[in-house]
Amino acid sequence: MSYEILATIESSDDVKRLSEEEIKKLCDEIREKLIDTVSVNGGHLSPNLGVVELTVAMHRVFDCPKDSIVFDVGHQCYTHKMLTGRFSKIDTIRKYGGISGFPKRFESDADAFNAGHSSTSISAAFGIAKAKQLTGDNSYTVAVIGDGSLSGGLAFEGLNNAGRFNKNFIVILNDNKMSISKNVGAMARYLTSIRVNPWYLRLKNRVEKIVVKIPLIGVPFRNYIRRSKSRVKKLVYRDTIFDKLGFSYYGPIDGHDMEELIKALNAAKNSKSPVLVHVVTTKGKGYAFAENDSASFHGVGSFNINTGEPVSVKKTFSSVFGEQLCNLAKNDDRICAVTAAMRTGTGLIDFSHEFKDRFFDVGIAEQHAVTFSSGLATKGLLPVFAVYSTFLQRSYDQILHDAAMQNLHIVLAIDRAGIVGEDGETHQGVFDVSMLNSIPNTTIFSPCYFEGLKKSLDFALYGCDSVVAVRYPRGVQSYRPGDYVNPSMNYDIYGNKKSDVLIITYGRIFSNACLALKKLREKNISVCILKLCRIKPIDKQAIEFAAGFKKIFFFEEGMLTGGIGETFENELLNINYSGFYKITAIDDCFVPHSTTITALENHNLDSDSMCKIISETCEVKNEKTT
Amino acid sequence: MSYEILATIESSDDVKRLSEEEIKKLCDEIREKLIDTVSVNGGHLSPNLGVVELTVAMHRVFDCPKDSIVFDVGHQCYTHKMLTGRFSKIDTIRKYGGISGFPKRFESDADAFNAGHSSTSISAAFGIAKAKQLTGDNSYTVAVIGDGSLSGGLAFEGLNNAGRFNKNFIVILNDNKMSISKNVGAMARYLTSIRVNPWYLRLKNRVEKIVVKIPLIGVPFRNYIRRSKSRVKKLVYRDTIFDKLGFSYYGPIDGHDMEELIKALNAAKNSKSPVLVHVVTTKGKGYAFAENDSASFHGVGSFNINTGEPVSVKKTFSSVFGEQLCNLAKNDDRICAVTAAMRTGTGLIDFSHEFKDRFFDVGIAEQHAVTFSSGLATKGLLPVFAVYSTFLQRSYDQILHDAAMQNLHIVLAIDRAGIVGEDGETHQGVFDVSMLNSIPNTTIFSPCYFEGLKKSLDFALYGCDSVVAVRYPRGVQSYRPGDYVNPSMNYDIYGNKKSDVLIITYGRIFSNACLALKKLREKNISVCILKLCRIKPIDKQAIEFAAGFKKIFFFEEGMLTGGIGETFENELLNINYSGFYKITAIDDCFVPHSTTITALENHNLDSDSMCKIISETCEVKNEKTT
Repeated sequence: MSYEILATIESSDDVKRLSEEEIKKLCDEIREKLIDTVSVNGGHLSPNLGVVELTVAMHRVFDCPKDSIVFDVGHQCYTHKMLTGRFSKIDTIRKYGGISGFPKRFESDADAFNAGHSSTSISAAFGIAKAKQLTGDNSYTVAVIGDGSLSGGLAFEGLNNAGRFNKNFIVILNDNKMSISKNVGAMARYLTSIRVNPWYLRLKNRVEKIVVKIPLIGVPFRNYIRRSKSRVKKLVYRDTIFDKLGFSYYGPIDGHDMEELIKALNAAKNSKSPVLVHVVTTKGKGYAFAENDSASFHGVGSFNINTGEPVSVKKTFSSVFGEQLCNLAKNDDRICAVTAAMRTGTGLIDFSHEFKDRFFDVGIAEQHAVTFSSGLATKGLLPVFAVYSTFLQRSYDQILHDAAMQNLHIVLAIDRAGIVGEDGETHQGVFDVSMLNSIPNTTIFSPCYFEGLKKSLDFALYGCDSVVAVRYPRGVQSYRPGDYVNPSMNYDIYGNKKSDVLIITYGRIFSNACLALKKLREKNISVCILKLCRIKPIDKQAIEFAAGFKKIFFFEEGMLTGGIGETFENELLNINYSGFYKITAIDDCFVPHSTTITALENHNLDSDSMCKIISETCEVKNEKTT
Repeated sequence: MSYEILATIESSDDVKRLSEEEIKKLCDEIREKLIDTVSVNGGHLSPNLGVVELTVAMHRVFDCPKDSIVFDVGHQCYTHKMLTGRFSKIDTIRKYGGISGFPKRFESDADAFNAGHSSTSISAAFGIAKAKQLTGDNSYTVAVIGDGSLSGGLAFEGLNNAGRFNKNFIVILNDNKMSISKNVGAMARYLTSIRVNPWYLRLKNRVEKIVVKIPLIGVPFRNYIRRSKSRVKKLVYRDTIFDKLGFSYYGPIDGHDMEELIKALNAAKNSKSPVLVHVVTTKGKGYAFAENDSASFHGVGSFNINTGEPVSVKKTFSSVFGEQLCNLAKNDDRICAVTAAMRTGTGLIDFSHEFKDRFFDVGIAEQHAVTFSSGLATKGLLPVFAVYSTFLQRSYDQILHDAAMQNLHIVLAIDRAGIVGEDGETHQGVFDVSMLNSIPNTTIFSPCYFEGLKKSLDFALYGCDSVVAVRYPRGVQSYRPGDYVNPSMNYDIYGNKKSDVLIITYGRIFSNACLALKKLREKNISVCILKLCRIKPIDKQAIEFAAGFKKIFFFEEGMLTGGIGETFENELLNINYSGFYKITAIDDCFVPHSTTITALENHNLDSDSMCKIISETCEVKNEKTT
């Protein structure tokens, strides 16, 4: 396809000068390009296909970047990026050095606020709108938020604060009738009731139509009713939950009908107070495979365009976790699974079918997930909250204050721990260890292989109390040496115990350490590896063992500050260790998008870098001593 | 007063056997005891005075501990404690070894869930209710939440999840017409509209009354309408925001009318689905000084019963912060102040009057406060979010994901950093350093005196970019040696530079280090003190300076893991330091309620403990070398 029109668009202005016919063609071209690009680069397909018309309509009605458009989560911004000067770079999306799959202010002025996590848009946009009010800037501010994101408490905090604003402020609710997977929660049910019974809201239109027909005074009277906050209005008008919170409700609008969309957005611009425009879209619109199974096409790796099949299907840590939890739950009806709208991603599909009563999808509400699990635990149940590392950040206070402080036994199954790759900095699972490490009454396991994950999960449920985290990486297993067998829950020693040099590490990069060991052997440098599985608390014997080495290299796929490398270091000094100790970890920076392999290389956590760091130090030292 | 009735109450059962007359007397006795106790011990007076009747009514209607009562925040639980076997211990409340000012499961089975932070009750109670459903337990579960707590997103997440429950579940909304200080947000305005216009809701009662009068079919028809989700119901019934979220709304109820309360709670028990009982109370009820100024009497130190005046009024870090921010804001209209319902506590009263447009009380919504501030910052404003250290924990993900990752310049003014004393473990400000230390693009200042606070605030606004935290303790300044002058923003050296022994510390306990230095001098042990003010990043020169000492003692009023002591240690090892290094900090435990002085002693952070730790080590070492 040649993308005749799309290729000419650089900004909102360009979108505005197109004819209606051209707009239709533009939307087709965008869809084509979206499917084409995501099939190769991977990415969030269904969300982007759903908002093609909405995004084009926004650029027809608003002036970007003068007007600020804040996308919630941000994974639906591909069309926006193509329309704001980044069409030529769209093939680089999610690739190292290329454009991001999420809004980034440094990429373009058209991106008003960065995103990645859910439910931030209303708060951020309201901050922008307030700042504009204070500085006398009359441009528009728009938050675009999905129905799923609306279940996050932060979104409600934003609505609650913005609902008393006395100026224009627009929230577009992109209601695709599901969040990532199934529709959950009372708000979702409420939105369904509006969608299914629009006549119920239109009551006010009917009343208005009658009023307006009264000669002479009809129109002024309608306007009076509209403005008034009086009992009269309340008697004749139905209002939505949003009206009650101070937002005028416009909707429901067909999100694929350009004319209707433009009319609604123009009406929203004319309001002198907050407005919520309820737009109904179809996730995956225009690509049959995605429309029929939008959950699977929410965020995908590369796939075959003609069949919709993913390029590779392998056993992952997520699927092994799901399987094992089912196995355990069969024999123990206290086990519950909790997810925050990530049933598919965390491998809980089977559990949700087999143990319907004990499966809880609480919506995108990680705070609630932990406090709710804590409630379950007070009554002797065994809740397992499966969550991506990056999203667990939302639960920090609940883990600390509601679970750990009460010594409640809940299990955090932390998926996507460590580098996650193409989703980039907002999604890296590199903070959870530092976050949990300083919380008392907390145990952390970080296994390297499926076998360790299964054992850890079992031990977390039956060998521990209080808060237990089991963290494991995204995707598949890495290299495992044939002579590494029967892993311990605690720590393992691999390699030459009589060497002077010790590598300490945990999690997936133990594989890289094993490869480095082989490479170092070729250079006649003999090393031993201390592989931790339980990283908090660290076993005293492991520390004593390490203290016997002259040089220690700690490699950590996570933040240096507050990580296990620092804890180990302090423990060593407590027993008067005075040898060489060096931590290699992610040092006070965010990790941008790239493949996982590239990111590990950039932070010296691949086997070659390990090899280099160790051999440099050891060779230099050898020279010095000779 | 003899507390004739109160002294005989041990449980719900005892409350139930009282006559109406005795109940009235019981309430009087409780009020008397509350005022008496809090005037001596300090505590949360207004919230407790407001819920005397409500709490007694709950114990008349529910069977505690069989039925679970979950208090939100928990500072309103004093009456509940007195009625559940803890009257005899109430004089020990908030004292070391005494009972806590918040619900504690280990104190009594009657406390269903611990609390301290806001907005957790619905989530926790729903977890309990779900667990009961799974285990066939038919007892009741009740969450008691204030209108202020309802502005926290977590509460909404809980409502959203619980709204689709198909069994009895009771939320009591304790609406005291204000959260801690002024009423903010759209939800608060909405609750006011219900309170002011109850006729609006009663429409359905009127319709019902008419329907019921139809002979023979009236009652069944009413029941049909009540059950149905049909259009008929929607046409004739007004519903509240809570109905829309799946909760039947009962209210508004006069929270000081025992009969009305008991009727409403009994009605709630009969529901087969979630119910919200809207109870309107008067904060501070029964103590004129507190009724008239409930904000000041929200949480108090000891005070004079007859005058309502606090026992001591001194200049605090909070007031100095507020003053200084006003001074700065006078000359710079970009400066904004943001608070999460803590205008009084954080010293922002004057700011809120002087700079009305630039003052934002966002409600109890710490997540929103940070993301909103980030929005302000994208437009060049200078937001300062004043917040207690412990409550900032709610904002972890927003600080990381919304502010730091975008390099947005926001200032976190962290009040109550370090030990806070009598409020106990849920309120200690001992985690913020570990929490922020691992977040990139973040600078942290931890001054010791007012002068340092003022300088830090100034520098945070004009000498830094991205996220800057300025943290300072609760209350007043501590000891300052006369020869410690002109503090640097970075680090200071105090004492004998030529000594072998170095103390490193920061924040308020520098005072204790100075006292320890004096005491050690008397024992002929000469020490030097390295006092940090900017604790992240640590100055390279400070590290090099420290490396010159043979023995280093790091004292930290915060968590050991992830703290500055560990960071400093790693930096020292990076430049091949091989001397003695010991960190004294809070080691992997929570800190219970006591005076601040006692807590510091218990964690070896007072001057005597410092002295002991140093002299023991130094003397032992001396013996060894001689």
